[in-house]
Amino acid sequence: MAPDPSLLSLNTATVRAQWALPEIIDGCVRHGIGRLAPWRDQVAKAGLADTARRIRDAGLVLSGYCRGGMFPAADAAGLAAARDDNRRAVDEALALGAPCLVLVVGGLPKDAADRPASKDLAGARAMVRDGIATLLDYARPAGMPLAIEPLHPMYAADRACVNTLAHANDLCDELGDGVGVIVDLYHVWWDPDLAEEIARAGRAPPVAGGSRLMGFHLCDWLVPTRDLLLDRGMMGDGVIDIPRVRSWMEAAGYRGPHEVEIFSAADWWQRDPDEVLATCRERHATVC
Amino acid sequence: MAPDPSLLSLNTATVRAQWALPEIIDGCVRHGIGRLAPWRDQVAKAGLADTARRIRDAGLVLSGYCRGGMFPAADAAGLAAARDDNRRAVDEALALGAPCLVLVVGGLPKDAADRPASKDLAGARAMVRDGIATLLDYARPAGMPLAIEPLHPMYAADRACVNTLAHANDLCDELGDGVGVIVDLYHVWWDPDLAEEIARAGRAPPVAGGSRLMGFHLCDWLVPTRDLLLDRGMMGDGVIDIPRVRSWMEAAGYRGPHEVEIFSAADWWQRDPDEVLATCRERHATVC
Repeated sequence: MAPDPSLLSLNTATVRAQWALPEIIDGCVRHGIGRLAPWRDQVAKAGLADTARRIRDAGLVLSGYCRGGMFPAADAAGLAAARDDNRRAVDEALALGAPCLVLVVGGLPKDAADRPASKDLAGARAMVRDGIATLLDYARPAGMPLAIEPLHPMYAADRACVNTLAHANDLCDELGDGVGVIVDLYHVWWDPDLAEEIARAGRAPPVAGGSRLMGFHLCDWLVPTRDLLLDRGMMGDGVIDIPRVRSWMEAAGYRGPHEVEIFSAADWWQRDPDEVLATCRERHATVC
Repeated sequence: MAPDPSLLSLNTATVRAQWALPEIIDGCVRHGIGRLAPWRDQVAKAGLADTARRIRDAGLVLSGYCRGGMFPAADAAGLAAARDDNRRAVDEALALGAPCLVLVVGGLPKDAADRPASKDLAGARAMVRDGIATLLDYARPAGMPLAIEPLHPMYAADRACVNTLAHANDLCDELGDGVGVIVDLYHVWWDPDLAEEIARAGRAPPVAGGSRLMGFHLCDWLVPTRDLLLDRGMMGDGVIDIPRVRSWMEAAGYRGPHEVEIFSAADWWQRDPDEVLATCRERHATVC
């Protein structure tokens, strides 16, 4: 069965090269896309209060806010800066009415020149656990759920050292209420334990009164992939069996948004953004 | 404690851009590297019998033979071709006196134009299991152990759909004697279960009278990594805590070769190959 078109959401990175956030909001309205997930830098540029008003006036709802995280740091000052920045991200997510703050947890601690300052991956993972625990003390009473997004293992060093849904589920089990997971196809499609871990998340105790499964992000894995970061494919152009994973999500009780998030420097970021949004709608209906 | 220098082995891909196999053999002798792991295409070019004689005359021993595998196929003819080609690889490994045939198991089935012909990852994994089982019927009585090398998840679609040591261990448990695993740092360094799965392989029943742990491949993960295939780092230039993983291997009883395998189109393949070999020796002694 084709997915409900009203579940479609646009992660604003998908057309970030072409449009500023106000244009993206207008584009969503024009294309009948009722949900979006904006990025902090775009919101900062457009103004937080202005953006909140624009989104409300347009009748759109958020599927998430991108992003908090980046917890590991090489020293106490770095850890404190990450803590403070994450609290600001929670505040912004609340101001925008986001259902969750998405966490890209960070990789190895970095030095002042942004180079890895340690090879202690287990230590970075401990910093992530501690960082989320500390942020929960702020986010839980404020009513903002945190959503851990496991990232593909090729980002373990520099973006996120939580690289499997099993690891994210383990963190949720340990940290308790207020924290859930995002399932992004690009990052987890290869995982032989994916079906089992989606089911496990679905069975978990409620988080902030809802499911631990807080988001479902769509794109595709291209063969060949020409860049580690900026060569994601449009749904249907790659090798991911999207309906199969969606069926696992639905069997686990997920009824939330289908958020399209495509970083594509050489292809989709070069196209007319109206074509991109029309293609997202069409592919969502036909191949997801 | 620094590793035993006599365990150092050269995977011949490390200088494949500069030298043919006879030159690589001479280079190993010149640099006091007593072990090597050649690739099939290099052996074919130099001649199988000639290569076997050269290696013997040089007093070198093999740490493995690269490579069999690529089991999934889009039709029966493709599966049969893979089966026959893998049997020839076993014969060559025997002729060269290799301790094992390394398996890069293949990704999704491909069409005639070498493009993915299916999105059925679970189906590809079943083809891999069946392909190894069939090859074992040939390799086991011939006395040639098969060594499954889990590849990094970024190769799941096009090179190998066995992407974790846990999956490789599961296959070994299922398939019984005659098949073991290779631990290649590049592919598995990110895995939160790595220590546990190395220990599990060490505890497994003997394979062909030896350990399930059939090889330990060294290189490093660079930040940033600029190419998905050909941007591996020299040991010490990246973020992998190599001594820590070596300690896990040794705690699991591994006493075998340390095989350096670096694909590096823009850096090490551009250098004087004598410099590359000297650097392998020096880094093995100082950072591994």
